[in-house]
Order: sequence, then structure tokens, then C-alpha cells
Amino acid sequence: MSKISIDSLRLLSRLSELGEIGRGGDGRLVRLAASDTEKLGRDTFVSWIEQAGLELAVDRIGNIFGIWRPEGVSDEAPLMLGSHIDTVIDAGIYDGCYGVLSGLEVIETLIEAGFKPSRPIVVAAFTNEEGVRYAPDMMGSLVYAGGLDVDTALATVGTDGTRLGDELRRIGFDGEHEPGFLRPYAYIELHIEQGPVLEREGIQIGAVENLQGISWQRVTVSGDANHAGTTPISMRRDAGYAAALVVTFLRERARNSNTPTVATVGCMNFEPNAINVIPSRVTFTVDLRDPDEDRLKEEEAALDAYLAQVAKDEGVSFNVERLARFQPVTFDANIVELIEGAAARRGHTVRRMTSGAGHDAQMIARIAPSAMIFVPSLGGISHNPREKTPDEDLVAGANMLLDVVCQLAGGDN
Amino acid sequence: MSKISIDSLRLLSRLSELGEIGRGGDGRLVRLAASDTEKLGRDTFVSWIEQAGLELAVDRIGNIFGIWRPEGVSDEAPLMLGSHIDTVIDAGIYDGCYGVLSGLEVIETLIEAGFKPSRPIVVAAFTNEEGVRYAPDMMGSLVYAGGLDVDTALATVGTDGTRLGDELRRIGFDGEHEPGFLRPYAYIELHIEQGPVLEREGIQIGAVENLQGISWQRVTVSGDANHAGTTPISMRRDAGYAAALVVTFLRERARNSNTPTVATVGCMNFEPNAINVIPSRVTFTVDLRDPDEDRLKEEEAALDAYLAQVAKDEGVSFNVERLARFQPVTFDANIVELIEGAAARRGHTVRRMTSGAGHDAQMIARIAPSAMIFVPSLGGISHNPREKTPDEDLVAGANMLLDVVCQLAGGDN
Repeated sequence: MSKISIDSLRLLSRLSELGEIGRGGDGRLVRLAASDTEKLGRDTFVSWIEQAGLELAVDRIGNIFGIWRPEGVSDEAPLMLGSHIDTVIDAGIYDGCYGVLSGLEVIETLIEAGFKPSRPIVVAAFTNEEGVRYAPDMMGSLVYAGGLDVDTALATVGTDGTRLGDELRRIGFDGEHEPGFLRPYAYIELHIEQGPVLEREGIQIGAVENLQGISWQRVTVSGDANHAGTTPISMRRDAGYAAALVVTFLRERARNSNTPTVATVGCMNFEPNAINVIPSRVTFTVDLRDPDEDRLKEEEAALDAYLAQVAKDEGVSFNVERLARFQPVTFDANIVELIEGAAARRGHTVRRMTSGAGHDAQMIARIAPSAMIFVPSLGGISHNPREKTPDEDLVAGANMLLDVVCQLAGGDN
Repeated sequence: MSKISIDSLRLLSRLSELGEIGRGGDGRLVRLAASDTEKLGRDTFVSWIEQAGLELAVDRIGNIFGIWRPEGVSDEAPLMLGSHIDTVIDAGIYDGCYGVLSGLEVIETLIEAGFKPSRPIVVAAFTNEEGVRYAPDMMGSLVYAGGLDVDTALATVGTDGTRLGDELRRIGFDGEHEPGFLRPYAYIELHIEQGPVLEREGIQIGAVENLQGISWQRVTVSGDANHAGTTPISMRRDAGYAAALVVTFLRERARNSNTPTVATVGCMNFEPNAINVIPSRVTFTVDLRDPDEDRLKEEEAALDAYLAQVAKDEGVSFNVERLARFQPVTFDANIVELIEGAAARRGHTVRRMTSGAGHDAQMIARIAPSAMIFVPSLGGISHNPREKTPDEDLVAGANMLLDVVCQLAGGDN
């Protein structure tokens, strides 16, 4: 079995090709969920599924599946591999795409090697994992796992005012299958770490045993628009200053704790956003993550308490919307062990670790034994054009996936 | 002379009528400089100038003049009254328009009363006083006073990417007169206070003897876009957090000083502005004002020093653009005395005061003796739909203007 290895050139060239789809004149890669550029990425992935001779299926939330259904075992629960191909704004080329294209690569490699699996093997690309255009993130896998009603998800209105359902229909990816139509025997997601741990420790493979909980909130501050020159400081109800207090509070709290808690304010919008007018209305987002559910709840409570204090001190009011909330996830111990063993047999260094990012695997873990394989991200950089993983690590990770798939769908070869 | 008074109904009804021009379906009043809605306001003002039988003139920067040139004195330097009719976003109806329409009202009243002036009397509406769409603010009067080259001003690119010169041509207000073509004998601007002082002290008339200096800067912070979930706090270069530190620094410094310094951050823009990405680039504006030039310089220096410190602490870089810088202005002592005397004769309470806002008068003061008359703003609210001055105060202020005009352009009646 260890004699089989993936076709490195095919995987790397497809990664580069997909990485150019959605790159604008300004050089920025942008493939937001269900957008025109993401449609081009989807079309390319579909063409590769068909080249590989796999059965194509699309479900109602737009998740794409390439299914290898070998004779005789087509009724068995399938082994599923996958990730996503939507991106953030000004993205790198590896986040998500690496897992999807490696899943496809593993299946093609096995077919070409005459491998006889004991069950179908499926590669999946889940819709709207990034959640930049439509909230919540990991939406396609969440719906697939039954965690969100498909019609509710399709009715989601995006940051640009569009409805996800309308956009999926427009780009031709409003499929007919009900989400969850294939219940996986197991799910494995290969992904770049998007963090600095593996590179810093000089380790090539991460066997991901659990995943941080995520809390997304949108906070709206209401104050009083007033003249910047004539309103004494003591009489101001400045929504912008109140928002700035919250940003600094979150950072200082995270910095001064000894926990792995991270807090990020990524979106900020001022109204009326005029140079000589005190901001009357400010909207910003809060992204809180922690591998421990109790600590995550503590952080949410601390934020609530601080908002109440600022409202009192500054004479502003806060409105808080919950955009997404996911508890920490523990992955399947057996699969994690298989990953460790496979790394050892290939001679790669390996460590168990926690995923700091949200991934489709955390959703699919609700309906099937799941785990993830990480490879290093140089400088821990991701969601950024400088996102980079060396080719040898990309190939090593894909071969890990190949070996684990052989063990979980092992036939008589 | 005190037997003459203005036509209250005509002034108040014109204020209401102009205040509805540019009100959108959402109920917000928006007449940004040289926009389609401001063109409608300009057309209405021009029609009233013509109804009054005044000579219409428009200069190259779009300033509008209604000129009363009585026989025999047409060569004398004119007495000029004025303000502006452009607005901020979601504005009130008094800021600027009150001074312009009162100037017109005073001239019509004097004509109807058979007043024989010793010099021409002119009402002016200056272009782009607010500076929301094009920087700097008070642009029309600055150009008129020779403080900014007209071609440079016309080439200004606005927040919406338009060129002011193109927009003035488009709306038909690219006049032929050279700015400054009428050199005023004196300039008087009647305006709402836009601050809380008069109302708080129960005083009806403000005789404005000086005006705060203004410093406008645009600050761009450059950090590092990175994944919100996987980047340890210690490794972040967060442009949003750095911007929030500056907002809180400015507020706390202004709050803790015993000076009249005010500091405002009115504009804030995050990039990429995504919920799960650390902001890589943030742009915000700083509006600093102080009646004392040395203190204003101190505040600018303190900001520069703090930016250097944050750059060092947070690993970000700052770029600072100066958008506008005006020194404090001292108005003409004789005109201020005339205002105090006129208030006393009409039985109104009056106090000398400083203007916290920038006004066209501060520019015209460069080329002619100038002063301002203030009336109360309820709650000190301005640049806001709740901007309000009681009708009796509006009428009182216009009669002050009438009386001072009679003294400065006094004929033999």
C-alpha cells in the first residue's frame, strides 16, 4: 500500500490553476461564496470531477460531490474527503482548495492504482465555508449535517443585499439532492494549519484532535451625531469612541490572559462617516474563539458586562446580534491515531494539535467520525496573499490522506 | 432706523422651503457640494435673487452673489453678507442657509423701506463650506479670499471620485467671474451657534469675536491581514486595534485637559472589513480644534508622538496626510461692538463668544473686516436633523443683521 503515492505534479498544477480563478486586475484573489468568480472555480472543479470519471452530485445548498461508486460496494456508507473552494477577500490559494483537490487526487490515484475499496469514496466541496458574504461561516457543511434548515440558509441575505438562494440559482448550483443525502462512514479533511505552530516546531504533519469553539457577534452602537467643532467633549455621545473602547478592551483582555482565547474585530463601519460629524451609529463584529466552552462563555459574558458599562459611561446604547456560535469539537480518536501511524510510516514528524480555525470537519463531525490533517503554513499566515505551504509539505499531506483513506476504505489489495 | 424690521414670514417660509430641497425618501436632508440636490437648492436661491431684483453673479468656484447696486454708489466697495447652502449628510435646515437667506431678507427689506445705502450690498452663498464631499471645507470662501488657487480647487477629487470642476460644470454653476472680483468693505455672517453656550446661559445673541483654529488630517494604518482564529495575539499586526488606540488616546487627552481643545474621529474605514480577518489597512480622520494656535500645534505634536509609539508597540506603520489647516481668527472689534450695541437697542441679551465651528467668515476675514452674529441652537445640536433654533431667535438674529447693515452702509435716511 505504501508503494502507492499521489501524482504531485497534477495536484500542484491544479492548485495553481484554481488559485488564478477569481484574481482581479488588482492582483487580489476573491472568490466569495456563490459569486461570479466562485462559479468559475466551481465549473473548473466539476470539469475535473468529470475527467476523473466520478459521479457528480450537487445538493440544494450548493455543496458539490464527486462520487467514486465501485461495483459491489455502492450501498456501503461512503468515506468522505473534502473542504471548500470559496475564499475571503484578497485570499491565498491553499485555504480549502488544498483539501478539496487532494481528496480528488487521492481518489484518482486509487482508481489508477486499481485499488479495490470496501466502500464508495467521495470528495466534497462545501458551500460558503468562509462566511464573508453570508453568515454563518461553514454554512454548507452545517446544513449538510442538519444543524441549519436548508430553506433558512437559502434565505440568508448577504453583505451585498443578495439572497444566497437567488445567487446559487443564478450561477447554476442550486442542486436537487437534499443536504445529508450521503451519510458518511467517516470524514477526513486535509488543510493548511493557518497558524504558526507546525512551522515553529519544525513538524511536518498535524493530527488534529479537536477544534476551538467560535462565537461571532455583530454589535451596533447608537450615539448622537453632532458638530465636531462646537460640542464640548463632556456633552458627546460618540458611537465611534465607544466602539474603540470595546476594541481595546477585547485586545487587552486577550493579551493579559494566559489562555489561548483570541478576540478579533474585523469589520467596522461608521455613520455618517463624515470628517466633521461625531459618529452617531457604528457597527462592528466580534470574533471570539477558545477550545474550552466554559472559557468561551466567560469571554462572552465579560464582553456583555463591558458593553453595559460603556453604555452607562458614554450615554450610548448597544444592540448585539449573534451571527454564529459553535461549541468546541473533539475529533475521532481512532482516525487521529491512524494519521499518527501513517506519518510515522512515511517518516514524517507529527504532533497532535488543536485547530484554531473553523472547518467543515467540525460540522460533519456531528454525523460521522471525523478528523483533520494539517500541514505547515509559513509564518502562520493565512487569509492573505502571502499564505504559503512548501510543495513537499503539500505532497506529504496528500499522501497522508491517501494512506488513511486506504486504511478506512481498505479492500483486498 | 430701528423702525425697520425684516419680514419674518418670508424668511421663515424660505428657510422651510430650502430645508426640504434634497430630502430623500428616507427623510434625510443631504445637499453635498455641487451634487444634483445642491443644484436644486442653488436654482431656488438664484430665483429668489432674481425676484428681489438683484444682479446675479457666479464666480469660477461656483460662489453665488446677489448684488444690490444702488445708483450713484455703485463704485463703492460693497458690504457683503453671506454663508453657504451646501449641507452635511442627514443635516438640519439652519446651518448656512439661515445666514444666506437672512442676508437676502435684509437687502429686500431695505429696498422695500426705501433705504438709501452708501455702498452696494451683496448676499453671497459660498461653495462647499462643509467639506464633506471635497476637502478642504470652506473652500469657496478660501478661494475667494485668495488662500487657495482656483484651478487647484477645481481639480479637487471628492470622496466619490468626482472632480469638483466637472461637477460644477455639470450642474451649470461654473461661473465666469474671477473669485475675489468684489472686494468687500466689510463682511458679516449670521449663523446658528451649533453649540450649547447661548441656550445654556439663556442669552439670545452672540457677538462672535474670534474663531477656533482647525486641523484636519487623514491617517492610514498598515498592518497585516491574517486569520482571526489561528494567529496568537502576540503575533498580530492589527491595524484596527492600532486605530482604536488612537481614537481613545485623543478622547482621553481632550477629556483630561482643562483647555477648550476638541478632537474628533469622524471617518473610519477597515480593510478588508471581513469578520474573520485581522484588519490589514485602516483609514481614519482626525479633526482637532482650538482657539489658541500654540495649543493646536501642541495637540498635533502629541498625536504625531503617539502614532510613533503605537507604530513601535504594535508593529504597524502610519501615513499622515494633512487635509486642511486653518489658524484661529480674530474678528473686527468695531463690528463686534456694533453687534453688541444693536442687541442692546433691540432689548436682546448678548455676549461675546468664540466660534467652535469653521465658517466662511474666517476666510473672508483675510481680505475684509469681518464678524459673525450667533443665535442659540437648542441642545447645541447641529449637523443633525434635530438641529433647531426657535423662530423668535431666528427673527431676532436677522434684525440684528439688518441694524448692523444699516450702520455699516448707512445712507441719509
